[in-house]
Amino acid sequence: MTSLALAVDFGGTKVEAGLVDAQGNVLPESRFRRPSGGGSTSEQLQAAVAGVVRDALSTLPDDATLLGAGVGSAGPIEVVGGTVSPLNVPAWRGFPLRDFVTQVVREIVPGTPVVLRMDGLCIALAEHWVGAGRGYDNVMGMIVSTGIGGGLIVQGMAVQGPTGNAGHIGHIEVGCFDDPCKCGGIGCVEAIASGPKTVDWAVGQGWVGSTGEELAAAYAAGDPIAHAAVARSGRAIGQAIASAVSLADIELVAIGGGFSRVTPDLFDMIRSAIAERAAFGFVTKVKVVPSALSDAGPLIGAAALVHRGELLTEV
Amino acid sequence: MTSLALAVDFGGTKVEAGLVDAQGNVLPESRFRRPSGGGSTSEQLQAAVAGVVRDALSTLPDDATLLGAGVGSAGPIEVVGGTVSPLNVPAWRGFPLRDFVTQVVREIVPGTPVVLRMDGLCIALAEHWVGAGRGYDNVMGMIVSTGIGGGLIVQGMAVQGPTGNAGHIGHIEVGCFDDPCKCGGIGCVEAIASGPKTVDWAVGQGWVGSTGEELAAAYAAGDPIAHAAVARSGRAIGQAIASAVSLADIELVAIGGGFSRVTPDLFDMIRSAIAERAAFGFVTKVKVVPSALSDAGPLIGAAALVHRGELLTEV
Repeated sequence: MTSLALAVDFGGTKVEAGLVDAQGNVLPESRFRRPSGGGSTSEQLQAAVAGVVRDALSTLPDDATLLGAGVGSAGPIEVVGGTVSPLNVPAWRGFPLRDFVTQVVREIVPGTPVVLRMDGLCIALAEHWVGAGRGYDNVMGMIVSTGIGGGLIVQGMAVQGPTGNAGHIGHIEVGCFDDPCKCGGIGCVEAIASGPKTVDWAVGQGWVGSTGEELAAAYAAGDPIAHAAVARSGRAIGQAIASAVSLADIELVAIGGGFSRVTPDLFDMIRSAIAERAAFGFVTKVKVVPSALSDAGPLIGAAALVHRGELLTEV
Repeated sequence: MTSLALAVDFGGTKVEAGLVDAQGNVLPESRFRRPSGGGSTSEQLQAAVAGVVRDALSTLPDDATLLGAGVGSAGPIEVVGGTVSPLNVPAWRGFPLRDFVTQVVREIVPGTPVVLRMDGLCIALAEHWVGAGRGYDNVMGMIVSTGIGGGLIVQGMAVQGPTGNAGHIGHIEVGCFDDPCKCGGIGCVEAIASGPKTVDWAVGQGWVGSTGEELAAAYAAGDPIAHAAVARSGRAIGQAIASAVSLADIELVAIGGGFSRVTPDLFDMIRSAIAERAAFGFVTKVKVVPSALSDAGPLIGAAALVHRGELLTEV
């Protein structure tokens, strides 16, 4: 008999669900996604979540046991009450996502336990479980995409924090930068080095284009503004990681997300910025590597909330 | 029978030792200190450490049990080998402080176990044990003095990291600042807001004086440059704390150290900077309070390595 977890990943662009086995494999036929745009109403968002959950559960094999459901959500969240207030989803402020998913799941499989955590923590759990962080006890998983997010495994334990919002690496400030951030901070790495912010900076320097993909192509073609834009973002990401390692003595950072693939050179730029902390071997020792997860990483991470529940702290 | 810990605190200015009971009280007659200036040779430093250890142990009551010795050291350290390389003590690079203290202690009390951790972690343990962090599971202890250091308790566990250097809050960068730091970073909060750096900035603005005490007096007397200098440092400390809370979802930060008492207004300046992260309630919720420890805080923290050893991760 197969023991499966239902995984749900809720983000500002889409919500996805799927069934994941105890080895971290997503059952391909169980994977469903629907849009969850920032302009959606709460009712539309609820319909999207309920839809992918029901679709995924409709594929539950007869001989399988559903161990539980793991829900990863864009933050901030409130882990104690199980509610979410994703910055880019204004229709949901304090929305009870955990209870909502519980209700939908239990209509189909009564009694199923449901765990909610931040999507960044799910990514860290996925890297630690089946990704680039296997074998490391101190790992940061990081996503560089429309925003910058992440999560931490410290001393082998998932760091969630009392509110569930630990791991907001995107809101570590960066020296020498003063870009305003929508969190209210100034010089947060997300406000500098996300895909859209990097594109914005290049456009401000006279580059003609509008997407991360176009910027990647321009970089590959040797465009000097594209190079400067990517270098600026790589430096900022490296500085933010150096600060995080100063605080948490992390061994390995695994970076995924669409914009992390703008060019393989990005990783060298990040590493160069970290290497400047030459007096601190415990900072420069950190390994910075590409994510080893497929695009199913967020689902695998949400499933880790069930299959690797022993790494979590109870709320 | 009283169960005591020998506590040793090694810093760039002095080394201190004392005996601490299971309630966190330092036995007053057991407390000894010697200078450990940055210009000392390794032999002089060893003599100072051995001296205070022997002095403290000479006061061990006949009816007391020595449970173990806890050593807090300025960082960086290398926790696995028990060596230290304090940034401000150039004579010691990879010095085996744990084994050295073990040898001195065991000449007097054979078999005594010795634990070494960073001084910042000791401060966090002390605040969590008997200070301002009592009752909180997610605490940062912070010292603002000649440098800026600290340590973290996360989910009730001491965060040491694989090398023992977690908690270097002084080397979190701060947006909008570009002060070079001796770690190699740029805009690290220690390079902006330590006592000496704040004094340096005021002098650069035309203030006449040379010590933190003089700056405190000038602030109290309404000197506008002193005010601007303290406000600048308070803002930087607040921004650094906001980044740390973004990453680690800390509930309470307890700040001690000589320069933290430059004026009580410093805490309001710190809190104002954190409050700017208005979109992130999990950041603005952090309580920032003065340390509740006496000047024996570092010794109490070193003793916590013994009396509260269950919070530590084995190395």
